[in-house]
Amino acid sequence: MKQGTLDLETSNSRLETFVEGKLFRNFITTLIIVNAIILGILTYDRMMPPGLVGSMSWFDQAVTIIFCVEILLKLFVYRLNFFRSGWNWFDFLVVGVSLIPGGAAFSVLRALRVLRVLRLLHIVPMMRRITEALLNALPGMGAILAVLALLTYVGAVMATNLFGDTDNPEVLQLFGDLPSSAYSLFQVMTMDGWRFEVVQKVVDDGNPYAPFFFLIFIFIASFAVLNLFIALIVDALAAEQRAATEEHLDEIEEEMDEEFDLADKERDEILILLRDLKQELAELRASKANDAP
Amino acid sequence: MKQGTLDLETSNSRLETFVEGKLFRNFITTLIIVNAIILGILTYDRMMPPGLVGSMSWFDQAVTIIFCVEILLKLFVYRLNFFRSGWNWFDFLVVGVSLIPGGAAFSVLRALRVLRVLRLLHIVPMMRRITEALLNALPGMGAILAVLALLTYVGAVMATNLFGDTDNPEVLQLFGDLPSSAYSLFQVMTMDGWRFEVVQKVVDDGNPYAPFFFLIFIFIASFAVLNLFIALIVDALAAEQRAATEEHLDEIEEEMDEEFDLADKERDEILILLRDLKQELAELRASKANDAP
Amino acid sequence: MKQGTLDLETSNSRLETFVEGKLFRNFITTLIIVNAIILGILTYDRMMPPGLVGSMSWFDQAVTIIFCVEILLKLFVYRLNFFRSGWNWFDFLVVGVSLIPGGAAFSVLRALRVLRVLRLLHIVPMMRRITEALLNALPGMGAILAVLALLTYVGAVMATNLFGDTDNPEVLQLFGDLPSSAYSLFQVMTMDGWRFEVVQKVVDDGNPYAPFFFLIFIFIASFAVLNLFIALIVDALAAEQRAATEEHLDEIEEEMDEEFDLADKERDEILILLRDLKQELAELRASKANDAP
Amino acid sequence: MKQGTLDLETSNSRLETFVEGKLFRNFITTLIIVNAIILGILTYDRMMPPGLVGSMSWFDQAVTIIFCVEILLKLFVYRLNFFRSGWNWFDFLVVGVSLIPGGAAFSVLRALRVLRVLRLLHIVPMMRRITEALLNALPGMGAILAVLALLTYVGAVMATNLFGDTDNPEVLQLFGDLPSSAYSLFQVMTMDGWRFEVVQKVVDDGNPYAPFFFLIFIFIASFAVLNLFIALIVDALAAEQRAATEEHLDEIEEEMDEEFDLADKERDEILILLRDLKQELAELRASKANDAP
Repeated sequence: MKQGTLDLETSNSRLETFVEGKLFRNFITTLIIVNAIILGILTYDRMMPPGLVGSMSWFDQAVTIIFCVEILLKLFVYRLNFFRSGWNWFDFLVVGVSLIPGGAAFSVLRALRVLRVLRLLHIVPMMRRITEALLNALPGMGAILAVLALLTYVGAVMATNLFGDTDNPEVLQLFGDLPSSAYSLFQVMTMDGWRFEVVQKVVDDGNPYAPFFFLIFIFIASFAVLNLFIALIVDALAAEQRAATEEHLDEIEEEMDEEFDLADKERDEILILLRDLKQELAELRASKANDAP
Repeated sequence: MKQGTLDLETSNSRLETFVEGKLFRNFITTLIIVNAIILGILTYDRMMPPGLVGSMSWFDQAVTIIFCVEILLKLFVYRLNFFRSGWNWFDFLVVGVSLIPGGAAFSVLRALRVLRVLRLLHIVPMMRRITEALLNALPGMGAILAVLALLTYVGAVMATNLFGDTDNPEVLQLFGDLPSSAYSLFQVMTMDGWRFEVVQKVVDDGNPYAPFFFLIFIFIASFAVLNLFIALIVDALAAEQRAATEEHLDEIEEEMDEEFDLADKERDEILILLRDLKQELAELRASKANDAP
Repeated sequence: MKQGTLDLETSNSRLETFVEGKLFRNFITTLIIVNAIILGILTYDRMMPPGLVGSMSWFDQAVTIIFCVEILLKLFVYRLNFFRSGWNWFDFLVVGVSLIPGGAAFSVLRALRVLRVLRLLHIVPMMRRITEALLNALPGMGAILAVLALLTYVGAVMATNLFGDTDNPEVLQLFGDLPSSAYSLFQVMTMDGWRFEVVQKVVDDGNPYAPFFFLIFIFIASFAVLNLFIALIVDALAAEQRAATEEHLDEIEEEMDEEFDLADKERDEILILLRDLKQELAELRASKANDAP
Repeated sequence: MKQGTLDLETSNSRLETFVEGKLFRNFITTLIIVNAIILGILTYDRMMPPGLVGSMSWFDQAVTIIFCVEILLKLFVYRLNFFRSGWNWFDFLVVGVSLIPGGAAFSVLRALRVLRVLRLLHIVPMMRRITEALLNALPGMGAILAVLALLTYVGAVMATNLFGDTDNPEVLQLFGDLPSSAYSLFQVMTMDGWRFEVVQKVVDDGNPYAPFFFLIFIFIASFAVLNLFIALIVDALAAEQRAATEEHLDEIEEEMDEEFDLADKERDEILILLRDLKQELAELRASKANDAP
């Protein structure tokens, strides 16, 4: 029994070496890239001979199965620790979505199946560094995003109350209900067609003072976005900066410490010598005093 | 009488503890959030049963009254000091506006009532930090905003003189009077549809050289906005930076001071010993001189 | 004769004190602001009673004359040195343009007269600081602006050759000649309506590969603009930064110098004492040697 | 034979001095600028007398030949080392393209001939500095651009699957095949007409949930672009910064080293003196001991 556990453990650690190995990762990476290309080619399925579409779909199915096996292997190796990693969850979900049998919503499922290509974002080391840097920047944005969301919500409720009570279909499309208003305010925030596609239609619907509402919203929102942006730059730079300066300062500090230590030792030696001298001189005088009488 | 004042003071400080306490703040925060959700749901009032609308409006009235009581409590606690805080003014105004009896302008008043949700911006500590950071950035923008406003004013007067004297309704809408011109120049500044929605209409109205006017305006305004932006970044970073470097430098300085102090003390000790030695030697010679004869 | 020159010099320096004085500057500042407001009100001349328009125009004329007198005074005080200052040239030109008698091009001249309001940019100290900061940032942009201009010129020649040889009036308006092409490329650079207002029209005119041309242009130009922007931020920050760090480092350096000087002096004192001791000891031995025989 | 090689080497190094000399470079620079102007004027060929067009085209041919000679000279001087420089490749290609005999695709070839004006980017030293700074910034962008390209590819495959299966020609133009989808997603990324030119058309085609797809894409892509931008700023600044601070720190370090060296030497001198003293005192005592008995 114990022997069996040991065997299992050994095979487990061997499996881990294999699953985390370069060979396996390169194989999966290649598979994802080929799969990405095939999913791209499959968007032309209406122009291709059915046989080709069939064999490509077959390959896609095979890739799905290989990815399932990969996840099962990792589940076997890491057990419940597997779910401690956000990236494992990501893999689990994008592969899992491919297993749902497609019916009427075939195009939606096929579209979601493409998401598995995003696995490259954490499998290719170069991209992983970028992706994790982006994800690390997120928490720092939390508070400002909350402020922006609150501003948009309040703005959307106000805009719906002020402009949504109308029969004009164009204005109803823009500010007829809460989500539409939030969406239109987001459009205004992106500065895309804000005047003639949004504000002017509201003005023409009998709200001559609407531009004031939108100008105030643009100013406040742009200012908040600007500061979100600045906060991100400052954070990134301050960290970088601190590292750069401190490195050199630490070097100087170390060198200074060494020099001070040396000086300290030598001064101690000087003091010892001086005290020696003093004592010898004292003895000299004492012996002289002895001589004198 | 004195006893009464004391009682009042005691009850006052107790009230302050209550009003500024965590419990009361959480209660108010919850109330604002629930109120925000209800004001959002109320934008769908035309699709809801009248009873539900009625009870929600009743809740909204109740919240207004609770907010009034909150402000009265704070007024009682802080007296006129209440108005020293900008945030208290903000609360006072957004709650006060809810008390105005709504008549014809019902939708405008209901819209303004939503502003009370913005109280979250200073009640939730996380948001308060952001909001105050934004407000602190404002004064630094003052001078550049004044320059931008001056440029826009001068540009608007020029545009009204140059392009506004026309019968073309589209151009009149854009540059017919001073506020329209300023608004259109702001549109040009946001780069939204500047060519075909603004400049081309002016050109088609018989101003073939209009693009020069607008290109110069775009260049100058973009450049000023860009510098406004840079000034904000530099300010934010310089402060952050200074703090980061100085902290380490202060540390080094302190350590250096300690070492220099130690060296100084030991050198002083050396000097004292040497002067001792010198004196003893002098005495030795003197005693010898005494011996000699 | 000499007396006369002296009187002139005295009156000249008195005049300088007056012209550069706070009182005179405030007077001119007030005049410009009032003038700015009146030029703004005059844009509504068609809706105002002719008498009011007349008296306002009269005031405007009076302001022009006062500005002329101001410039003549400064010319009298500074002689040809007057033209050494860019701001004086600016004043000279914007006031000079008001003196041109208006005929057919009345609106253009009235529009240019508004430029004198921009004198505030260098008369109000707060604005002057901003304006000069902006002007100082210009030289640093020179090289990148030259690169951008070259890219736009080359792009415009290419676009005119590739797309301008057509009968389609919409495409002719966009890329019919060199200035139009440069203007359209600038529009593409601002990302405003680049796809459906510009690129699609060229594609529909029989240039299916036009998007490649414009995408390459967008990438290169955005990248150059981005770097222009970054260069400005880096310059501004580096200067600020250097100042901040060096200030503290200089302080530390000074303190270190003091400490090192002190240590140096004390060590010198120690050495002198030691040499003294050595000599005394030598003398002691010598006297002893003398005693001995 | 050896003599011949020597002669060749001498003429070679003389030629190198000539080809890299200021005179030759200024000649080529002038030629490019004149050529640029002429290529600009030639865009008006339909309005010019045929003789003028002919002589200008003749000049353009002459410039092409001079550039060929220039490249042949450099090839002769540097042999295969010529192709080690990216700029030489650039020159080689933009001059080579002018030699292709123009037939039906005349306008395309004439357009490509303008590219030789871009040689100024590396011949004028001021521009060369900017261009090389831009090129040096490219590798740092590599990883983020790869992430953006992956996101766009995945987004394009998804959009083609989700929205491309339609008969609506407007939506087919936007998302009918993979390149169109990528192009439309790029348009959405530039925020140009994203709502009514793109998203609304997809919604009207029967995809009511399309805004979610595009909003998610806008958020992720903007965030990635933003971080690309921040990374570039941080890199540029950190380098600049490091240089600025280190320069001063190095100075301080050097000065500190000098002072520490001085102190070290003086302490050594002190120690030597003390040991001398000690020995003399020992000798003094010894001689005394000899005296005593």
